[in-house]
Amino acid sequence: MQPVLADSVRLVEDGVLILDRRTFPFERSWVRCATVDEVAKAIEDMVTQSSGPYFATLYGMVLAARALEGRPFTEARAELARAGELLEATRRTNNALRKAVAIVLEAVDAAQDVAAAVEGARTGDERYRSRSRALGTHTAALLPDDGCVLTHCWADLYLTETVFAAQRAGKRLRFVCTETRPYLQGARLTAETLAEMGVDTTVITDGMGAAVLQSGEVHALVTAADRVTMDGHVVNKVGTLGLAVAASAFGVPFLALVQAPDRQALTAADVPIEFRDGAEVLSTLGRRTASARVRGHYPAFDVTPPRFVTSVVTDRGVFAPDRLPDYYSGGEQQ
Amino acid sequence: MQPVLADSVRLVEDGVLILDRRTFPFERSWVRCATVDEVAKAIEDMVTQSSGPYFATLYGMVLAARALEGRPFTEARAELARAGELLEATRRTNNALRKAVAIVLEAVDAAQDVAAAVEGARTGDERYRSRSRALGTHTAALLPDDGCVLTHCWADLYLTETVFAAQRAGKRLRFVCTETRPYLQGARLTAETLAEMGVDTTVITDGMGAAVLQSGEVHALVTAADRVTMDGHVVNKVGTLGLAVAASAFGVPFLALVQAPDRQALTAADVPIEFRDGAEVLSTLGRRTASARVRGHYPAFDVTPPRFVTSVVTDRGVFAPDRLPDYYSGGEQQ
Repeated sequence: MQPVLADSVRLVEDGVLILDRRTFPFERSWVRCATVDEVAKAIEDMVTQSSGPYFATLYGMVLAARALEGRPFTEARAELARAGELLEATRRTNNALRKAVAIVLEAVDAAQDVAAAVEGARTGDERYRSRSRALGTHTAALLPDDGCVLTHCWADLYLTETVFAAQRAGKRLRFVCTETRPYLQGARLTAETLAEMGVDTTVITDGMGAAVLQSGEVHALVTAADRVTMDGHVVNKVGTLGLAVAASAFGVPFLALVQAPDRQALTAADVPIEFRDGAEVLSTLGRRTASARVRGHYPAFDVTPPRFVTSVVTDRGVFAPDRLPDYYSGGEQQ
Repeated sequence: MQPVLADSVRLVEDGVLILDRRTFPFERSWVRCATVDEVAKAIEDMVTQSSGPYFATLYGMVLAARALEGRPFTEARAELARAGELLEATRRTNNALRKAVAIVLEAVDAAQDVAAAVEGARTGDERYRSRSRALGTHTAALLPDDGCVLTHCWADLYLTETVFAAQRAGKRLRFVCTETRPYLQGARLTAETLAEMGVDTTVITDGMGAAVLQSGEVHALVTAADRVTMDGHVVNKVGTLGLAVAASAFGVPFLALVQAPDRQALTAADVPIEFRDGAEVLSTLGRRTASARVRGHYPAFDVTPPRFVTSVVTDRGVFAPDRLPDYYSGGEQQ
């Protein structure tokens, strides 16, 4: 059975349902979006994150197309493209949204009919899932038959597909997940989802990772990557770097998961790091947790240099961090 | 002016006042203890921590002695020793409590009068402060004239004395402090106290330390140590290890502060690590922050091997981690 977070953007008859990750798992509430504008607002309001905005964009395009049925094709196509721009603008740094829009428009153009948006969305959905499945299978193959994995933040479908693949292969994995302050994606999303999947799961605070890695009880550090540069720098949720450095110091392999390295980013300097409002680190679930007299600092991502990365696992297999150009010897990623 | 946490156990006419660190700085409430039993309970209930229990033990002994005035010396002395055992039992792993009891009993024995307990307590108070002052002066001398220090958890008087010494020397230091989950000593105690002292202070989550160390903006990592073994292992609040490993990887010196290395601990194996209830990492300030379906893991301390330690700073000066036996070439610590 799919854990709820792996199927948390759903196209229904009268709109799109999006699971509210801001309060999950303390509440399991779904935001119902009747229009593409409501989908865009939900993405902007952080109702969903990680791979969620990709799926929300696919199905937001379908809602836009539905509202255009009966209109002349050229006019409807232009309106649909505008809806795509609206959706892309919700998270400017997220390349996946552009891909979602493109795949829907491609199907519409092929059919010369906006009603084909739904097939485009289904194709995009299945393509993302099958690539994540391939990545998960390659990752699971690197893990021991019986062992413990440390993970950070929420690796979304990469994590669930890795766990599914390991379970299919009869491997018995235990997970330790960091809580991932300030938004607690590890303590909330990862922990709950692993438990749903029947995995033995332990939560630690973000400061405990090095001690756990030093203990000898962890066999691999596995995280997603928001981006991997062509020269092997891993850009991911802040906290990954510290874990990777400790893993390296204590001889634990670090596997960074990404569907494909980013051809637009040759090295770390090509990836601007987002700094969020420092006030966000001074509270937890809306309650102040720091002295009122100080400020916070919030680099949202960190960059792990290739010397601390053991392998980059993609949908096309496993690459050493200095061999990523080989990924594209198989041609462009679709 | 002393920050409030540097003077947070106070002997008054009718008892001992102990600042409640569990809710500081959101509340500034003092627990009034009228008897030694109430002092022992306050220590057990974690009203105070770090150096607080040492001072509470000194003045708890004074309360016990006051209650014994007028009794024959031998009988009073025996009762006072029993009060000392009660106080020592509140935190069995805290060597400082035994020292506090001993220094009071020493004064009583010298005077053959339990009323001398107050002089013993004053001596113990001043000795701890003057040693911390020496340590702070040695630490400040290692810091730049204008720079940024990363610290973890709450280094108590070692921190305040370092800041005072730096300020006396005209140095301009900025501090970054980790929030230190699960109890947020960094975000609450350290951040508030540094702000009280007029220091430019920034809070980060525990996962952000490596990124900050990598940035080149931090000139030293400075933490207290609960214990330093004779061969240079630094035992401190969990999270120290990860910061020390990252500091080493990015060329930032790590200074570990302790009044004296521990002659009872030749190496790390001699120091049992306290594991606290894992449930404590699943909540923040009393509110659940993790999935209800998982367990937590809480190693309270971690052990940083000497290869990640630049210097151990004591009341007798600065030692390389492999030269700690030299500390005792000046004789036993008082």
